[in-house]
Amino acid sequence: MDDQQLADSLTTILDGRWGAVRRRLRGHDDPTQFGPPDEPMSMEEHRAHTTSQLLAITREDFARAGLTRGMGGTGDIGASVTAFEMLGHGDLSLLVKAGVQFGLFGGAIANLGTERHHTAYLPGMLDGSLLGCFAMTETGHGSNVQHLETTATHDAETDELVIHSPTPGSRKDYIGNAARDGRMAAVFAQLITADGEGHGVHCVLVPIRDEDGNPMPGVTIGDCGAKGGLPGVDNGRLAFDRVRVPRENLLDRYGSIASDGTYSSPIDSTSRRFFTMLGTLVRGRLSVAGGAGAATRSALTLATRYALHRRQFAAPGSDEELTLMSYRAHQRKLLPAIAKSYALMLAQNELVEMMHDVAVQEGEAPEDRQRELEARAAGIKAVATRHATDTIQMCREACGGAGYMADNRLTGLKADTDVFTTFEGDNTVLMQLVAKGLLTEFQESFEDNSPLAMITFASRFTASSILERTPAAGLISKLIARAPSSDEDGAERHRGRQVALFVDREKHLLEGVALRLSKAAKAEPDVAFRIFNNAQDHLIRAAEAHIDRVLLEALCAAVERCEDGPAKELLDDVTDLFAESTIEANRGWYQEHGRLTARAAKGVIRDVGELCDSLAPRARVLVDAFAIPDAWLGAPQLLEPLPESRPEPLPEPLPESRP
Amino acid sequence: MDDQQLADSLTTILDGRWGAVRRRLRGHDDPTQFGPPDEPMSMEEHRAHTTSQLLAITREDFARAGLTRGMGGTGDIGASVTAFEMLGHGDLSLLVKAGVQFGLFGGAIANLGTERHHTAYLPGMLDGSLLGCFAMTETGHGSNVQHLETTATHDAETDELVIHSPTPGSRKDYIGNAARDGRMAAVFAQLITADGEGHGVHCVLVPIRDEDGNPMPGVTIGDCGAKGGLPGVDNGRLAFDRVRVPRENLLDRYGSIASDGTYSSPIDSTSRRFFTMLGTLVRGRLSVAGGAGAATRSALTLATRYALHRRQFAAPGSDEELTLMSYRAHQRKLLPAIAKSYALMLAQNELVEMMHDVAVQEGEAPEDRQRELEARAAGIKAVATRHATDTIQMCREACGGAGYMADNRLTGLKADTDVFTTFEGDNTVLMQLVAKGLLTEFQESFEDNSPLAMITFASRFTASSILERTPAAGLISKLIARAPSSDEDGAERHRGRQVALFVDREKHLLEGVALRLSKAAKAEPDVAFRIFNNAQDHLIRAAEAHIDRVLLEALCAAVERCEDGPAKELLDDVTDLFAESTIEANRGWYQEHGRLTARAAKGVIRDVGELCDSLAPRARVLVDAFAIPDAWLGAPQLLEPLPESRPEPLPEPLPESRP
Repeated sequence: MDDQQLADSLTTILDGRWGAVRRRLRGHDDPTQFGPPDEPMSMEEHRAHTTSQLLAITREDFARAGLTRGMGGTGDIGASVTAFEMLGHGDLSLLVKAGVQFGLFGGAIANLGTERHHTAYLPGMLDGSLLGCFAMTETGHGSNVQHLETTATHDAETDELVIHSPTPGSRKDYIGNAARDGRMAAVFAQLITADGEGHGVHCVLVPIRDEDGNPMPGVTIGDCGAKGGLPGVDNGRLAFDRVRVPRENLLDRYGSIASDGTYSSPIDSTSRRFFTMLGTLVRGRLSVAGGAGAATRSALTLATRYALHRRQFAAPGSDEELTLMSYRAHQRKLLPAIAKSYALMLAQNELVEMMHDVAVQEGEAPEDRQRELEARAAGIKAVATRHATDTIQMCREACGGAGYMADNRLTGLKADTDVFTTFEGDNTVLMQLVAKGLLTEFQESFEDNSPLAMITFASRFTASSILERTPAAGLISKLIARAPSSDEDGAERHRGRQVALFVDREKHLLEGVALRLSKAAKAEPDVAFRIFNNAQDHLIRAAEAHIDRVLLEALCAAVERCEDGPAKELLDDVTDLFAESTIEANRGWYQEHGRLTARAAKGVIRDVGELCDSLAPRARVLVDAFAIPDAWLGAPQLLEPLPESRPEPLPEPLPESRP
Repeated sequence: MDDQQLADSLTTILDGRWGAVRRRLRGHDDPTQFGPPDEPMSMEEHRAHTTSQLLAITREDFARAGLTRGMGGTGDIGASVTAFEMLGHGDLSLLVKAGVQFGLFGGAIANLGTERHHTAYLPGMLDGSLLGCFAMTETGHGSNVQHLETTATHDAETDELVIHSPTPGSRKDYIGNAARDGRMAAVFAQLITADGEGHGVHCVLVPIRDEDGNPMPGVTIGDCGAKGGLPGVDNGRLAFDRVRVPRENLLDRYGSIASDGTYSSPIDSTSRRFFTMLGTLVRGRLSVAGGAGAATRSALTLATRYALHRRQFAAPGSDEELTLMSYRAHQRKLLPAIAKSYALMLAQNELVEMMHDVAVQEGEAPEDRQRELEARAAGIKAVATRHATDTIQMCREACGGAGYMADNRLTGLKADTDVFTTFEGDNTVLMQLVAKGLLTEFQESFEDNSPLAMITFASRFTASSILERTPAAGLISKLIARAPSSDEDGAERHRGRQVALFVDREKHLLEGVALRLSKAAKAEPDVAFRIFNNAQDHLIRAAEAHIDRVLLEALCAAVERCEDGPAKELLDDVTDLFAESTIEANRGWYQEHGRLTARAAKGVIRDVGELCDSLAPRARVLVDAFAIPDAWLGAPQLLEPLPESRPEPLPEPLPESRP
C-alpha cells in the first residue's frame, strides 16, 4: 500500500456516513465559490463579496437538506450539516453568514414556528430573497439569555405585539446580517400578554428593513464595524422603539397567544419552556464545532507541509540542514494536535449521526436523548473551538515569519475562528452546562447555567451509569477488562489502561463536584455561592474529562471498525498519541489521585516522545487523509519548497550599478 | 491609604529607575501622537499614518538617548529603552517601525560601524531624513542566520563590494521599512575577499532607493503585503543582482578590508566574530520584550475593568447579577496573568539596568557579563512575548463578544503582537540558547544554536554556581535558609519554600540536560542527533525554569525594597500568587521528582484558589498600578459600564410603526 492509498483509506474512515457529500464538494467545479477573496478587500467590499457567495450557494441543495420534507426540504439533516462543515475549508465569513441565514434565522422559523411561518418564510429564507437575522444576544446579556430585557407586549386593542428595547443594555448586539443585508429578524424578547403577565422569552419575527433597505420605523440599526476577523459578516445592532408587528409574527410552536389574548403553551414552566426552545437550536453549536474542525485541519495541513520542506540547522556530522519536522520540539507541537483533530472529527461524525437520528425521529426520540445531544454538542463545540484557537495559533508560530503573511492564510484562519470560542455559547459557560448535564443525567432542562441551578441539580446526583450512555460502551468495557493491573513497563500504551485512566478521571471529578455542590444545596445562600465558586473549576475540569473520554472512545471505535492493515495500524498509533498526550497533560492530577506513580508519569512523557518520533515520518499521510484540495488551501509558499535556484539565470556580464 | 494612593505606591515600584521617563510620557500633551488611528484605514493609509508618526517622534529625545555622547547622543540608554517600552501602549505599528529605524538600522550603524559611518549616517537616522532597513532574515534562513546566502564580494579592481542574492531563498524577506520608505539597508551577507576567501557574515550599508523613491539599479523590491497585524509597517523583500557599493560601506568594527584588499578582524574565529556582532544587537530583543509587556498590561487593564462592571447571573438568594470578577473561573484567568505581568515588568527593569550599566562601561564590562545580558534578554523576550500572546488572547475571550469588536482594541493588540514570538529570534530557538548559555556559564559565544554547538558546549557543563549570578543572590539564600523542611499545612505559601522549589527545578533540569548531552558528545553523529533530539524538550523546560526563577527573584527583591505598609502587603500577595500558580502549572514535574507529595500538590491548587479569592477585590488597584492613561486605552465599552437607563426618555405617546 503506497502513501496515497494509505491516506485514502484513512480519509474514508474520517469522512464518515456522509462521505459522499464531502467527496462531491471536493470535486466541485468552482472551488473559489467558497474561498476567501484573491485580493485584499475593504470591509465593505468583503461584505458584498460574501453576500454574493451566499446567494450563489442557495443554488446548492444543502440548506434545503436541513429541512424536513414537511417544510419543503429533503430531510437529510446529516448531509446538510456535513456540507456546512466543508465550508469551513473556505472563507469563514461565508461559513458564518450561511450559518446565520440557514442555521439560525432559518432554524428559528423551522423549529420555533408553526406551519404558517414555514409556508410564508422558508422559501425566501432558502432562496436568499429573504435575508434574516437571529437577534438573541443583547449588549447587557449574552450568556444569561433567560434574562434578556427586550419586551414583546401584546396590545389587545390592535392585536399586535409591541417590540421594545427599554434600556441601552437591551439593544441587540453583534447580530450577523444586521448591519447591511437583513430584512427580517427573529427577535428574542420577554413575551407579555395584555393582562401584564410575563411568559418568559419567546421569538418574534420583526421586519427591520423595507424593500429599499431602509430601516423600518422605530428600528434603529447600528453597525458593529470592524471586528477581529470575519470581515465579510455584517454584524450590527438593533434597537426597537415600540415597533408593532401582527400577533401572528410570534413563532408559536412552544407558546401562543389566542385571538382573545390568552396565552397557552404545551410546557408549563416558563424556564423549562425557554430551555426547550433553545434546545431545538442545537444544530448551531454542532455546526460551529464542524467549521472549527475544518479550519483547524486546514491550518495543520499547511503547517505540516511547511515543516516537511523547511530546513534549518544541520545535524552533527552533516552539511545538509534538517527539516523542521525532524526536531522533537516541532513534532511535539504538530503531531498531538493532529491526533486530537482526528479524535474530534470522528466524534463530530458521531454527533452528526446522533442529531440526524434524533431529528428524523421527530418528537419520538426520548427526551433524555435530546438532552444528551444538547450536552454532547455543547461539549464538543467548546473543545473543538478551544482546539481551533490554540492549534491555529501554534501553526502560525510553527511557520515563523511566513506564517504571519496574510497570503499564507494562517492569520486569517486564526482571526476568523477566534470568536468561535464565544458565540453560540461562551466556552466556559458551555463546559459548566456539560458537567451539569452529566450530574443530572439529562433529567433536567439543560441550558440553565445560574449558580443556583447548578447547585440544585447537582445535589440530586446519583453516581450511576457514566459508562452506559456511549456508542462504544461494549467495546470500552471490554478494553478496560483487558487492562494490565500493574505498573509494569510498557503498560502505558495499553488501550485498556488508557481508557480506564480516562474513565476514572471523569468519574472521580464528577463525584467530587457532586459531593461539593450537594453541600451547597444545604447551606445558606451566601455560603452556597462560596461553595459553588470553589467548585467551579472542578465543574469545568469534569466536563473536560468527559469530552476527553468521548474523544478517546470515538478513536477506539474507529480503530475497531477498521479492517486489519496499515490504515488500522496507523490509526492505532494516532489513538495512542491522543491518549498518552492527554494523560501527559493531566499527569499532575493522576499523581495527586494515586492513579499514576511518579515513575509511570515519567514513562508517559517518554512514550509521547517516542510516538512523535515514530509518527513524524507519517505526518504527510496523516494530513493528506484530511483530503483538503491544494486549491482550497492556497498558501503555495507553505505547501511547497522554493525552487532550488533562480528560475532565470542572471545575465552576464554583470549589470553595473553604482549608487 | 486609599486605593489611589495604594496604586500610586505600586506604580512607583513598577516604574523603576527610569520612572521619570514614564511619568513624562504619561503626561504627554498629545497622547494620540503614539496611538492607533481613530478611524479604520486601508493598509496604505495606515502605512502613511505610521510614517508620519515616526517622523513626529524624531522630535522626542529618546532615540538620541540611545546613542553614546561620542556618537552624538546623550548616552542615557536606560531612558531610551524605557521610552520605547511606553510606545507599546500606543499603536504597535509605530513601536515596530521605530524599532526598525532607531533600534535595528540605527543600532547596526552605531554598534557595527566605525566613526565614518557614525558621522555620515547617524544624524539622518535620528532626524528621519534617512529611513533605513535591517536586512538580515532571508526567505530560506531565519533562525540559522549564520548560514545566510547573500554575498558581499570585494572587487579589488574597482574597490567595491558586490552585493548579490544567488538563489530565490537568499532574498531578504519580511524586512521592515523596505516596501515603502527605506532609502538604505543594513544588509547582512557572507563577506568574500577578492582572493575568494569567505570571512563569515558581515553587515554592509546598501542604498536601495534613490531620492525619488525608485529602486536603485540591481535592487528588486517586493511588498510582503497584508500581514496578520502591524498594518502600518511596510514589510518588504529585497533581492540584489550584483549591486555595487564602495568598500567603505562595510560596517567594519569587527572586520575590515584594507585598501589593498586584505581582511583583518580583532576576532579570529569566523563564527565567534559573527556572534559577537549579533550580541551587540541585544537591545532589539529587550525592546520587543518591553513592548510586549506594555501591550499585555493594556489588555489586562481592559479585561479587568470589564470584569469589574460586567454582570451575568445572580447568586443564590439574590436578584442582582454578579460581576464576572466574582467567579473563580474568571479570577483564575485574569489574576495569575496580572501577577506574571508584575514579575515580568520588574525583571524587565532589572534587565534594562543591566544593559544600561554594561553599555555605559563600554568594552570595560567583562565579557561574561555581556553574554549573561544576551542570555537574559533572549529568555525574557521569549517568555514576555509568549505571555503576551497567551494573555491578550485570554483577555479577548474574557470580554466575550465585546472583546471581538475592533473598537475595543483587544483584537488589534493580539494581531499586532502575534509576530513578537517570532521576530528578533524565534522563541523556541531562543529558549534553547538560554539553556545553552546556562550550561556553558557564558564562557562560549552565545548565538550558535546548531545541535552540534549545543552538544559540544553542554558536555563541558559543571553544575556550579547557578545561584550566584543573580542580583538578589543574598536575599534568595536567606529566604531558602528559612524554608520549612516538612510537608506541613500552610507551608506552601512560605517564601523560602517557594524559592527553593523554583531553584531546585531549574538545577535538576539543567543537570539532567547536561548529563544527556554529554553522552551525545561521545556518540557517533547520527546517534548524537538522536540524543540531542530526545533532550530538546528538556533543554527548553530548563530555560523556562530558569526564567521562572529570575521572575520570582525580581518580585522578591521588589517586596524587600518596599517599606512596610499596604503596598508591600499587596505585592507580597502578588508574589505568592505568581509563585503558587507557577508551581501549580508544574506540579506534575514536582510530583514526578519527589518534590511535592500528592497532598502538597492539592494544597497548592487550593492555595491558588484562595489567593485569587483574596486578590479579586484588589484587581482594580492592581491594574491601576500599571498607570496607563484611559485616553491611551481607548475602548470605553470595556472601561466603564453602560448607563443605567436610556440617556433620553422615549417620547410619549408611542410612535406607531406598522410594517
